[in-house]
Amino acid sequence: MNIFIDAMGGDHAPYEIVKGSVEAVNEFGVQLTLVGPTDIVKKELEQWDYPEEQIKILHADSVISNDDEAALSIRRKTDSSIVVGIKAVKESENGVFISAGNTGAVLSGGLLLLGRIKGIKRPALGATLPTESGLALLVDTGANTDCKPEYLQQFAQIGSIYMENMYNINNPKVVLINNGTEEKKGNALTKEAYQLLKNTPVNFVGNIEGRELLTTDASVLVCDGFTGNIALKTLEGTSKVIMENVKNAIVSNTVGKIGGLLIKNNLSTLRSKFNYKEYGGAPLLGVKGGVIKSHGNSNAYVIKRTIQQGMKFAEAKVVEKITEELTDINKTI
Amino acid sequence: MNIFIDAMGGDHAPYEIVKGSVEAVNEFGVQLTLVGPTDIVKKELEQWDYPEEQIKILHADSVISNDDEAALSIRRKTDSSIVVGIKAVKESENGVFISAGNTGAVLSGGLLLLGRIKGIKRPALGATLPTESGLALLVDTGANTDCKPEYLQQFAQIGSIYMENMYNINNPKVVLINNGTEEKKGNALTKEAYQLLKNTPVNFVGNIEGRELLTTDASVLVCDGFTGNIALKTLEGTSKVIMENVKNAIVSNTVGKIGGLLIKNNLSTLRSKFNYKEYGGAPLLGVKGGVIKSHGNSNAYVIKRTIQQGMKFAEAKVVEKITEELTDINKTI
Repeated sequence: MNIFIDAMGGDHAPYEIVKGSVEAVNEFGVQLTLVGPTDIVKKELEQWDYPEEQIKILHADSVISNDDEAALSIRRKTDSSIVVGIKAVKESENGVFISAGNTGAVLSGGLLLLGRIKGIKRPALGATLPTESGLALLVDTGANTDCKPEYLQQFAQIGSIYMENMYNINNPKVVLINNGTEEKKGNALTKEAYQLLKNTPVNFVGNIEGRELLTTDASVLVCDGFTGNIALKTLEGTSKVIMENVKNAIVSNTVGKIGGLLIKNNLSTLRSKFNYKEYGGAPLLGVKGGVIKSHGNSNAYVIKRTIQQGMKFAEAKVVEKITEELTDINKTI
Repeated sequence: MNIFIDAMGGDHAPYEIVKGSVEAVNEFGVQLTLVGPTDIVKKELEQWDYPEEQIKILHADSVISNDDEAALSIRRKTDSSIVVGIKAVKESENGVFISAGNTGAVLSGGLLLLGRIKGIKRPALGATLPTESGLALLVDTGANTDCKPEYLQQFAQIGSIYMENMYNINNPKVVLINNGTEEKKGNALTKEAYQLLKNTPVNFVGNIEGRELLTTDASVLVCDGFTGNIALKTLEGTSKVIMENVKNAIVSNTVGKIGGLLIKNNLSTLRSKFNYKEYGGAPLLGVKGGVIKSHGNSNAYVIKRTIQQGMKFAEAKVVEKITEELTDINKTI
């Protein structure tokens, strides 16, 4: 297992990234490599107590910022933490790269530097949702804004392999996100994808609407990357606005404030249940190596959780499983 | 003003529909026509006190159910409450038809029986969202699952006319729902639509992401009908799940229950703020007459609110305004 962390990626880098990495080392006993300018990373590390042999530094001179154009910066900034980190994954056994930096650059880096697994048409970005029956992977959430039906078919396949191996879900249920539950519903893309999914060796159980994203008992929720992005961000935005409004409603008068104190613990449990960051970052699935995109505003806790996810990703050998099973699946289709 | 209500449409018809209509008559002094089988509607009306001359019955023998195929049922069930009601709008001055019945049939009925306003490429279904700065119209929310960029351009125009005339919003801000805020972001559709919108006589201010649906200060949120459906239902589903979880978190222990009693009033105000049904139904914009689709599970209160919206729609002469301004706009583009 070789886990590389982009020390310079995200709104709170390098401080929170390095802090979260140290916490992961202390809590999980994992060995990590921080990627970034040696002097900066070293200085950050000096603040913390941890077994020193557990954290290595891989030097990278520059940083790709959020303003940099994704694909271009991967080609030009070859000494950036993202490029150096992803190249390190390529050259290592069972490697995983974690970054809270420029999403487009992390995606492009994964695609361009690692390359697609044989048979994969389009790698996809997943996001883990907390549903009422467990966890579900929403895939794609932004790697492919314009999709063909065959891409959605493959998202179902790689999503199933991910959920099966990461969370030991046997024969995970797959649904297609659509504007109606009936088979005939949909736009041109989902109508065709539905027909393909019926004849794909996954446990496809039909369509769900947007309102079922958090209540579905399926483990893999398939859509194109544009729709996935809209759905995920609508979900995030709505839960944020409502939780804030609940808070404001409580403190709007004295009686409410007293009531609020009494339910404080219950609400904080709830808040962490709907905090998508609790479930780690977004895995890029279908490339020849592990790449996990952590939220841009990740703090140390989120980074620690994403490292835990990365460890699971490496242990479960997700890349190897996709490579093997896609070959088998392609034979049977 | 001629307001026709489908007495037989929706999960709670005819009881809640007739009750809501009676309440609207008593509260707003409006004159209404209930459309449905005369004997059934008459019997429902007998339960209530209201000035009898204020409610007429327009006989319709049959009902289009939710299982009926939309376009087909409009052509075949010519004696249904939806067909009879929409035809009545066509033959009346400033008419509005309100139905909580089969959405597809209401849409098809509006399109086939009323026809498009001259210059309108695709009529669209709007939905009113409660944003932090007021109300916003999400358009399209399901009339057009596959769109061309020019359709989105027109949604911006008719949405602006609607918001301007219904809510007296001067030069309403228009945004495009997209997978990123930067101009270059998007799928093939939104990238092209962005360029068109820049050169359209509306107050276009750029892209918003899904997470800003409830916090935007724009009044018109433009997207294709598939995306709008996913966004709207994700928003509805998420707020429902979170409010239920808040409730459960509160009652999960005794201390929480006491706290819950103290904040009960504050939370119920909040609940109605995020109850999309408070804001009436979804107007079908771009056809030659008023058609408003009320939620399938509308109760009397929601029907009353939708009738209020229908009254405003007629008073503001929305259809006339779209007809006039579209002609002007088309001249200037």
